[in-house]
Amino acid sequence: MTEPVPGAADPARPDSSPPDSPPAPRGLSRRGLLGLAGAGVAGLGLGIAGDRAVAAATPSAAETAAAAVYPFYQKHQAGIVTPAQDRLHFAAFDVSDGTSRADLIELLQDWTVAAAAMTNGRDVGEFGAVNGAYDAPPEDTGEAVGLPPSGLTITFGFGPSLFETAAGVDRFGLAAARPADLVELPHFPGDMLDEATSGGDLCIQACANDPQIAVHAIRNLSRIAFGRAALRWSQLGFGRTSSTSTSQATPRNLFGFKDGTANIKAEEPAATTEHLWVGSGDGPAWLVGGSYLVARRIRMTIETWDRTSLREQETVIGRTKGEGAPLSGGTEFTEPDFSLAGRADQPLIDQAAHVRLAHPAQNDGVRILRRGYNFVDGNDDLGRLNAGLFFISFQRSPAHFNTLQLNLARNDALNEYIRHVGSALFAVPPGAVQGSYVGAGLFA
Amino acid sequence: MTEPVPGAADPARPDSSPPDSPPAPRGLSRRGLLGLAGAGVAGLGLGIAGDRAVAAATPSAAETAAAAVYPFYQKHQAGIVTPAQDRLHFAAFDVSDGTSRADLIELLQDWTVAAAAMTNGRDVGEFGAVNGAYDAPPEDTGEAVGLPPSGLTITFGFGPSLFETAAGVDRFGLAAARPADLVELPHFPGDMLDEATSGGDLCIQACANDPQIAVHAIRNLSRIAFGRAALRWSQLGFGRTSSTSTSQATPRNLFGFKDGTANIKAEEPAATTEHLWVGSGDGPAWLVGGSYLVARRIRMTIETWDRTSLREQETVIGRTKGEGAPLSGGTEFTEPDFSLAGRADQPLIDQAAHVRLAHPAQNDGVRILRRGYNFVDGNDDLGRLNAGLFFISFQRSPAHFNTLQLNLARNDALNEYIRHVGSALFAVPPGAVQGSYVGAGLFA
Repeated sequence: MTEPVPGAADPARPDSSPPDSPPAPRGLSRRGLLGLAGAGVAGLGLGIAGDRAVAAATPSAAETAAAAVYPFYQKHQAGIVTPAQDRLHFAAFDVSDGTSRADLIELLQDWTVAAAAMTNGRDVGEFGAVNGAYDAPPEDTGEAVGLPPSGLTITFGFGPSLFETAAGVDRFGLAAARPADLVELPHFPGDMLDEATSGGDLCIQACANDPQIAVHAIRNLSRIAFGRAALRWSQLGFGRTSSTSTSQATPRNLFGFKDGTANIKAEEPAATTEHLWVGSGDGPAWLVGGSYLVARRIRMTIETWDRTSLREQETVIGRTKGEGAPLSGGTEFTEPDFSLAGRADQPLIDQAAHVRLAHPAQNDGVRILRRGYNFVDGNDDLGRLNAGLFFISFQRSPAHFNTLQLNLARNDALNEYIRHVGSALFAVPPGAVQGSYVGAGLFA
Repeated sequence: MTEPVPGAADPARPDSSPPDSPPAPRGLSRRGLLGLAGAGVAGLGLGIAGDRAVAAATPSAAETAAAAVYPFYQKHQAGIVTPAQDRLHFAAFDVSDGTSRADLIELLQDWTVAAAAMTNGRDVGEFGAVNGAYDAPPEDTGEAVGLPPSGLTITFGFGPSLFETAAGVDRFGLAAARPADLVELPHFPGDMLDEATSGGDLCIQACANDPQIAVHAIRNLSRIAFGRAALRWSQLGFGRTSSTSTSQATPRNLFGFKDGTANIKAEEPAATTEHLWVGSGDGPAWLVGGSYLVARRIRMTIETWDRTSLREQETVIGRTKGEGAPLSGGTEFTEPDFSLAGRADQPLIDQAAHVRLAHPAQNDGVRILRRGYNFVDGNDDLGRLNAGLFFISFQRSPAHFNTLQLNLARNDALNEYIRHVGSALFAVPPGAVQGSYVGAGLFA
């Protein structure tokens, strides 16, 4: 662990922001500082980032996961096609009563400044965690001091409720800007949703290769939001269950199977254009280059699963457990052949197999980008691990998810072993331009 | 990620088991297999460990965290002075009604076999996760297939209730073997304990550098226990808060401060003898070379803490937030000088400072080995992160912890920002000898 080095240079990194863009806002708003520090510090002024230890410009391969820095200001928000990091802290917020449209804009500006600092390996605030006014609360909470950037990405989204009318009043004057696609997901067969872990006006997905870095990000952004938005629910994920780059090995979920082999990868530009990013004909201009995020908290009844035979498990999934190859033969990345039949002319890949029902061929060609995480949140009263998959997907339209999920919810053999208990949908605006803020187009 | 390589050799590693010890039990009991697999597989036979990908014999420094293998059969159980790994899954179990003394012994034998396999980077069972009888459930749940050993340690403990008499019956015939020291911890001032996350007949501490490996261990050991013991509570920890070796940097807790600077380290043999390991004059012979584990779930009111000034935070802790140096001067590892006074003859380290009250000089010379973890379990109904420290300490006697905690509970300025909500005590037997099982001395 290294001590913070005030004034340390940023690591060399690609930066997609235009060279002639105006300078980034240098600090948090007065309200943002109030959130950070309480009344004592209001007026401390502008400026960002007590610098943290930042990785060397050319890290060795060994240090890649810790040293990775993904620029915040990009065409698309980071944390979507970014190679999926190992750890997650996801949070949904509700905007607090009494918060105006101007307050909401200021919050998004403050979040942008703080997110750009933290993803760059810096503390939030001018003085960070350990410097500055001794009689004021530190601007940064400090648990990330000395830690490298760890590939942190912070991705923001807007829930349907942000665009709604409450008691006859358009909450933030956004009703006219609402995308036609941004409506609550339908009730799917078998859904057993808990409202307390569903929905939300705003969301933040923080992913990093060190959980302390992801938790630090959500904590400090929650703090900045004080008085303007409050945590509605949050979820930690300890292990990624998807690859979003061909450079990554396919991980395993808590059923012990490789998951997301057929996921959209960053290296497929045609697929990301067709399936992932909102296009210019898809709806309001502010969302072009963005996407839609679906989050589903899926509890797995792993104790039941663990008592089924290897045959049943492979039949349900449609792949082998070891290699992850389709039951129609080949290796992991062999395309499944759903028509191949075996003994008694039964298809080698069962009609109700997950891999069949989730395949684009069964869903009008739909593909999604999955970016979910394993979770274990202690255990329930019956001594069963409260475990499962925190499913996250990004897609060009929620309708794509709905097509897929309706097919799965009706027919998937896996339904015997899972239960959807949380659900949320967010519109994810494109990346912020340096000098502006995330979602600026929505308020233009 | 590598595919499992059946028959792969164990990595070269030190093994402290005597060369002339009898061969290790090669497999789980019938009941253990029943737990793994349900009735279909009973009688599958003996044998351990569908082999997983195991690290190279001489890993590069880069791969150390992933490749680390700590032998299970040692004089002291691993997971105590072992350099604290990054992640934790801790579980407390209650022995199920109807379980006999012989059943309990068999459970400990099964756990030993499985723990030795998993800490060595192998699956549990003869066939592991992906081989074996196709019509039986896989013996291993599979989510660790392809992952390196990741420094996994598995540490077992016995709670006071295991030695108790229930309805006039000595539960497992252990009342006479109960150490005099093994009594429930006293109620400390301010304790707000939740029974549901306190106590337990048995405990397992699984630590690893990959959370999926720690979770896999607890899950499979829970499964093996089926019908004999059930999860009472469990806790994931995402970041270590202590160093147990001088080779490790001091980490930060969720107050943003370095924690456990003065911890007992593996490199202090005199201190471990004096403060950590149960000695031959301390109680029953079966516990000599063991220790006592105290677990305390400490909720931190981080939102309140975050609103206090840097001055107040440093005064409460007694150290600087940046460097972690005592307020009496020097650097992190400078011994605090509690007598030094500053302005108005006030001590530089406050009378109620945590560092003062936790210091051996204030506690009859007591030192403990801390091995705690940060946790965040979502948020509460008020939108506050359910965050804190899952405190674990090892000490030669619970009385040492009690001395320290009573002093802290009465006087520590930090109490304004923390709340003890869970508590448990376990006697941790010495390490198992190869061919025997953990805790064997207790049943001799």
